Amino acid sequence: MSMCADAKKNLNKAEELVRRAASNGANIILLPELFENLYFCQERNYGYYSLATALEDNPAVAVFKKIAKEFDVVIPVSFFEKSGNTAFNTVAMIDAGGEILGIYRKTHIPDDHFYQEKFYFSPGDTGFKVWKTKYGTIGVGICWDQWFPESARCMTLMGADMLFYPTAIGSEPILDVDSMPHWRRCMQGHSASNIVPVIAANRTGTESVVPSAENNYQSSSLCFYGSSFITDETGEIIVSADRESECVIESEFDIDSIVEKRMNWGLFRDRRPECYGTILKY
Amino acid sequence: MSMCADAKKNLNKAEELVRRAASNGANIILLPELFENLYFCQERNYGYYSLATALEDNPAVAVFKKIAKEFDVVIPVSFFEKSGNTAFNTVAMIDAGGEILGIYRKTHIPDDHFYQEKFYFSPGDTGFKVWKTKYGTIGVGICWDQWFPESARCMTLMGADMLFYPTAIGSEPILDVDSMPHWRRCMQGHSASNIVPVIAANRTGTESVVPSAENNYQSSSLCFYGSSFITDETGEIIVSADRESECVIESEFDIDSIVEKRMNWGLFRDRRPECYGTILKY
Repeated sequence: MSMCADAKKNLNKAEELVRRAASNGANIILLPELFENLYFCQERNYGYYSLATALEDNPAVAVFKKIAKEFDVVIPVSFFEKSGNTAFNTVAMIDAGGEILGIYRKTHIPDDHFYQEKFYFSPGDTGFKVWKTKYGTIGVGICWDQWFPESARCMTLMGADMLFYPTAIGSEPILDVDSMPHWRRCMQGHSASNIVPVIAANRTGTESVVPSAENNYQSSSLCFYGSSFITDETGEIIVSADRESECVIESEFDIDSIVEKRMNWGLFRDRRPECYGTILKY
Repeated sequence: MSMCADAKKNLNKAEELVRRAASNGANIILLPELFENLYFCQERNYGYYSLATALEDNPAVAVFKKIAKEFDVVIPVSFFEKSGNTAFNTVAMIDAGGEILGIYRKTHIPDDHFYQEKFYFSPGDTGFKVWKTKYGTIGVGICWDQWFPESARCMTLMGADMLFYPTAIGSEPILDVDSMPHWRRCMQGHSASNIVPVIAANRTGTESVVPSAENNYQSSSLCFYGSSFITDETGEIIVSADRESECVIESEFDIDSIVEKRMNWGLFRDRRPECYGTILKY
């Protein structure tokens, strides 16, 4: 989905899309990262700190708790979380029935010219999280997390049978690069190496900054490239959105049969944890 | 390349292919895993233990030291290594000029019905290795290692600018699966997540077992699927062999520019080693 400057409209649109997916029979429904607002991290602006809310005060969490109950569906909800004197980029995991199972705070925080997240978010302090939902044991990574094999491996080792990644990624106004295929291949790799389906939901649309004294008269536009996708457990993309459309994509998995395949393939039997110290060293 | 029962013929063919690559201007030349012999791990047979040699007695290592000197090329040589009362699946890293920089012993040992490597090889005790060769700092993983994100991440953290994987993989006589695309996606993922080119060399051809009392009258054939490939630093396959042909594939990289891209992308800046303990726990 694409976002606009009106948070109420964004939430209404997200609700409409989730209702559509639930009506189609979906069990677990993933929205993009920080769907309540424009991607404010494109610029540095103290004013945006006020967008952060505590978990219990977040309007999207409140709405989707109700919808999770109404349709008996699982909804991981991405939101900008205020906590004490700082803020996090957080997902609240709402189980079917509406209970909040817990939160995950984004571990890896990017800091590029137009993805200035270190200005807004403290690095997550929850560690990776995996939840036993009504429809399976799932892990969630948030956007930049999706580039790190460590996130996917940790969540799979903790028992995740599917990995979900809400995202906001698009063009690079300075770098002359379309990162879309690279972005996909990272997650296809996590899927293939961990033998788990991966589900990624990205935003679409172009968002432009209004130059102001506060943002040092920055003028830029980001074009979010959509391309949301779902892989099977070998990393093959089995359903995919295009770069512009607002849409619902869906797939169905037989978790028991994937668990069996994961066991048969022997990768987890043959791991050598005593050889992996370098990963914690640098 | 494909292999036959005559080790001398296999070595001659490997030499001919390496000379061809060197004449084309290659700097680092990768042969498939255990190219001196048929893939003996298809069956359990005590007799094959006698194929293992010490590093200093291995005919392929001796031949390729000479060729590394003659052409000033780097050649990682895969061989079945005898060491004390056991054996390893090993690569000797021969630098341009012919010096052996060291060995790497395969960390992850598979053990499927027709890939019975735990019968032949002790799990490697060298840890992951990275070498400063004349043409760049490179890491080598051996076959099954290529399915593990930990191998690729450790080698990149240790300074590898390119990852090489000699391999022997093909059909699964019992499982109804073509693992080729899955196999490629794992390595494309390592490439994409670590921002390094990946080079994989696999064997081709069909190898059949002769039933005998020693192998419990096993009758099986493995069809090795070739499909050797080279990725750029975003995991895109830029050159690829087909499933049957014996051939040389080549690519050229500007390491300095890839190092710069890896830096600019910020992934290694944003790692959170204190969050990765789970990887060493299971």
